[in-house]
Amino acid sequence: MITSAQNPKIKWIRELQSSSKSRRQEGLFVIEGVRLAEEALSAGWQAQLVLFSADLSERGHKLVEGFASQGATVEQASPQALNAASDTQTPQGLLVVLARRQLALPARLDFVFIPDLVRDPGNLGTMIRTAAAAGVQAVLIPPETADAFAPKVLRAGMGAHFRLALHSLGWDEIVHHTQAMQVYLASAGAGLVYTQAAWRSPCALVVGGEAEGASQPAQSLATQPVHIPMPGGSESLNAAVAAGILLFEAARQRSA
Amino acid sequence: MITSAQNPKIKWIRELQSSSKSRRQEGLFVIEGVRLAEEALSAGWQAQLVLFSADLSERGHKLVEGFASQGATVEQASPQALNAASDTQTPQGLLVVLARRQLALPARLDFVFIPDLVRDPGNLGTMIRTAAAAGVQAVLIPPETADAFAPKVLRAGMGAHFRLALHSLGWDEIVHHTQAMQVYLASAGAGLVYTQAAWRSPCALVVGGEAEGASQPAQSLATQPVHIPMPGGSESLNAAVAAGILLFEAARQRSA
Repeated sequence: MITSAQNPKIKWIRELQSSSKSRRQEGLFVIEGVRLAEEALSAGWQAQLVLFSADLSERGHKLVEGFASQGATVEQASPQALNAASDTQTPQGLLVVLARRQLALPARLDFVFIPDLVRDPGNLGTMIRTAAAAGVQAVLIPPETADAFAPKVLRAGMGAHFRLALHSLGWDEIVHHTQAMQVYLASAGAGLVYTQAAWRSPCALVVGGEAEGASQPAQSLATQPVHIPMPGGSESLNAAVAAGILLFEAARQRSA
Repeated sequence: MITSAQNPKIKWIRELQSSSKSRRQEGLFVIEGVRLAEEALSAGWQAQLVLFSADLSERGHKLVEGFASQGATVEQASPQALNAASDTQTPQGLLVVLARRQLALPARLDFVFIPDLVRDPGNLGTMIRTAAAAGVQAVLIPPETADAFAPKVLRAGMGAHFRLALHSLGWDEIVHHTQAMQVYLASAGAGLVYTQAAWRSPCALVVGGEAEGASQPAQSLATQPVHIPMPGGSESLNAAVAAGILLFEAARQRSA
């Protein structure tokens, strides 16, 4: 049993939690808690290491067995050691190191979401969750956006990461994938009213972070700015809320 | 100049930041940073105390003068002292204690938002911001929902608090205000598809927190459950994103 916060595995997990560079170099990331672990296991993701504490629920122990039968290393850890490896203030007794993988892009892409310059991990995770619910085929993540496999992004994503094709790409690759598409760019007060856009045609939606406007490459990529009229005055919207309104207008049109 | 974290004013502000009971008893709350302070001043809210540090921007100093000319007490504080009073990790050199007030409800209410059991302050603030942008006339806040004047709610609200009627009410009062209305309740997979609802008629929308379902009083209040179809499968949505999709469908119908 691991009992020390100085244990090399605990230190290694802490490094994976805090450094996107380490996650990328090792091709690994970390999730915590029963809910996310269930989503990962049921979607067939491979664990490399599973740590659990004695107070884990029965539901949690079933998950540990599931990952073990896939060949993952399983170890018990003291609550203190798990705490030291955790990114949250209330660890849930279960921590899983998973191998990063990429779900394949469909042969014919026709509904894509691109979060541009989104630095806030909670917002990015909520966007990924929303995109999955709206039936987006893929999320293409430009270089300037936060790492989709950071702990807070995973938590806010609520398991969408395991079911949706998430591709971190350079802008040239994003240009390549979207070349036959209408590319809508969420804009403040400019362009087409979003309900007038033709979301049933092959399309991509670019939504930027809140602090900065759209990046230069995103502006070059876009073929049509769209905006959400705001009857309450000049207020702006939270970026994830704006993404939700636009993606679900697209979903509404596409299912009509 | 205030230099000590133990200064009674600093301690008092810290108490107001952390305790909803103190905020309610004193009828006061605290905002930080130039952006929120600008919104408060331009909407005519009264400051009781303004603390600023020497490194405040020129734009910030103008605000300090504005509040002073209203009769607010203004004091300089060291960055360390301001830090101790701050709720954020990167204080912005300006902290304002404001008197709570309630914008009057319109005589004829016909578009109301009710956040039910919303405990997450970021989500509540984002909902208030979204409701203001969608042109809601009032947000009626039931007793079990987080305090709308908590620091994180104010930050996520981005100034909407100063322009929108926010009323913390008991359920009996909420029943009274909504008795002539259709009351839609956001539900998972049950009830009317949200685009089929008659949002142009006088209506209220109830959206619950994510962890628990709708409260018993909210269920009794509701006249019609509505749901958002999710083509991507069984995923749920972030509560603030769901509120945004529903409120902007209402806004779309009401402006058509």
